[in-house]
Amino acid sequence: MKAESIEYQDGAVTLRGYLAYDDAKSDRRPGILVMPGGFGLGPNAKQRAEMLAGLGYVALAGDPYGNGIEINDLQEVRQAVSALLEDPTKFRQRAQVALDTLAALPQVDPPRLAAIGYCLGGTFALELARAGAPLRGVVTFHGGLETQCPAGLGQVKAKILVCTGADDPSVPVAHVNTFADEMTKAGADWQIVSYGGTMHGFTYADAASRGIAWIAYNQLADKRSWQAMRSFFEEIFAAA
Amino acid sequence: MKAESIEYQDGAVTLRGYLAYDDAKSDRRPGILVMPGGFGLGPNAKQRAEMLAGLGYVALAGDPYGNGIEINDLQEVRQAVSALLEDPTKFRQRAQVALDTLAALPQVDPPRLAAIGYCLGGTFALELARAGAPLRGVVTFHGGLETQCPAGLGQVKAKILVCTGADDPSVPVAHVNTFADEMTKAGADWQIVSYGGTMHGFTYADAASRGIAWIAYNQLADKRSWQAMRSFFEEIFAAA
Repeated sequence: MKAESIEYQDGAVTLRGYLAYDDAKSDRRPGILVMPGGFGLGPNAKQRAEMLAGLGYVALAGDPYGNGIEINDLQEVRQAVSALLEDPTKFRQRAQVALDTLAALPQVDPPRLAAIGYCLGGTFALELARAGAPLRGVVTFHGGLETQCPAGLGQVKAKILVCTGADDPSVPVAHVNTFADEMTKAGADWQIVSYGGTMHGFTYADAASRGIAWIAYNQLADKRSWQAMRSFFEEIFAAA
Repeated sequence: MKAESIEYQDGAVTLRGYLAYDDAKSDRRPGILVMPGGFGLGPNAKQRAEMLAGLGYVALAGDPYGNGIEINDLQEVRQAVSALLEDPTKFRQRAQVALDTLAALPQVDPPRLAAIGYCLGGTFALELARAGAPLRGVVTFHGGLETQCPAGLGQVKAKILVCTGADDPSVPVAHVNTFADEMTKAGADWQIVSYGGTMHGFTYADAASRGIAWIAYNQLADKRSWQAMRSFFEEIFAAA
């Protein structure tokens, strides 16, 4: 297994992603973009990239902010996220350059791409889908579902799987319903899994250490959503 | 593979179920109760029982009405369902006798039971869960989620997986939300999967032949929900 830092550009901003793949393989494989949450590219997203490499995929964990920085202070996270979300075009571009980087890798089979994301990273992945990126699938885990640019009819090429916590205060039922309506009107292929008794950040094993009341790890929801993603990938990558 | 008719009693009513299992196996296996929808015990539920037997389970498709009768006229279905639902105690009893029959079979390992159900059969399975039946899991496919006897705190022993069509007029978002609240208040372990662009009866391959506008087969949702059930069973039956 190989895991390494990889640099790419978004205009003047240098981004530092994390690439993981099985270097014992020589065939072109499906490529999975992993977009991290508002804390930046840290151990959680890197571990997911490694887990995906273990499943036989080429995984690139993208960098939302530049220089691979992590932000720990919640107030600073909010400011950084707000700055990113201010301009939807620039926001989509930040994910697109990561996807382009992944698609251009010699290990990746470009017709077989997917994006997954956590919290803010889920929003990144969904914005790629809304923009019509040539993805076979998008999976979000406690991802933000709101958008400034709802998808138009026929725009979404990716099949969508949303995994959300029923008790997540940042993804209330109203957001879920609005998102479902948006995807239905867009004619997208979508599924939403709601996990009972589950808060925001349910995949973050280190959630408790952050001391944030509305973020909590949930091992069952973590395992179930990962399994749902695996089944979904088996479906969407079955065809060559 | 063995598949045979099996008679059991609910008071004075003789029920005729359909039992399927691999008779080449001699070990005790998890038992799955399959409750059919309002059309009665027909080819759909029997086929599911056979598919479950192929997965290594002992499956009993239950009889909702007696004598294994099927009803094809929608008006008659509505009358028969209303008559069943009138008395919640009797309704639960009709599922309980099927579960008891399954649990008593020599091929079945009684600590490892689950119930699945389609439409009305989903309601049957959920009522068993609400009554505290010793099930490891309940899965519903386009199942009715309403109840006259909401579960009390700690009452639900089964883990719950609900697979529902987002466009199912008989299971609107309001029912889904009420059900989620009920299960949360009961402290149950629950998940709900909502499939976009999916109507009532999405697992019925013969739906079109019935000529009912709000019932439609959806192959993708059928396959996905079956896969979700399989992953769920692997989880709940992993322990001895």
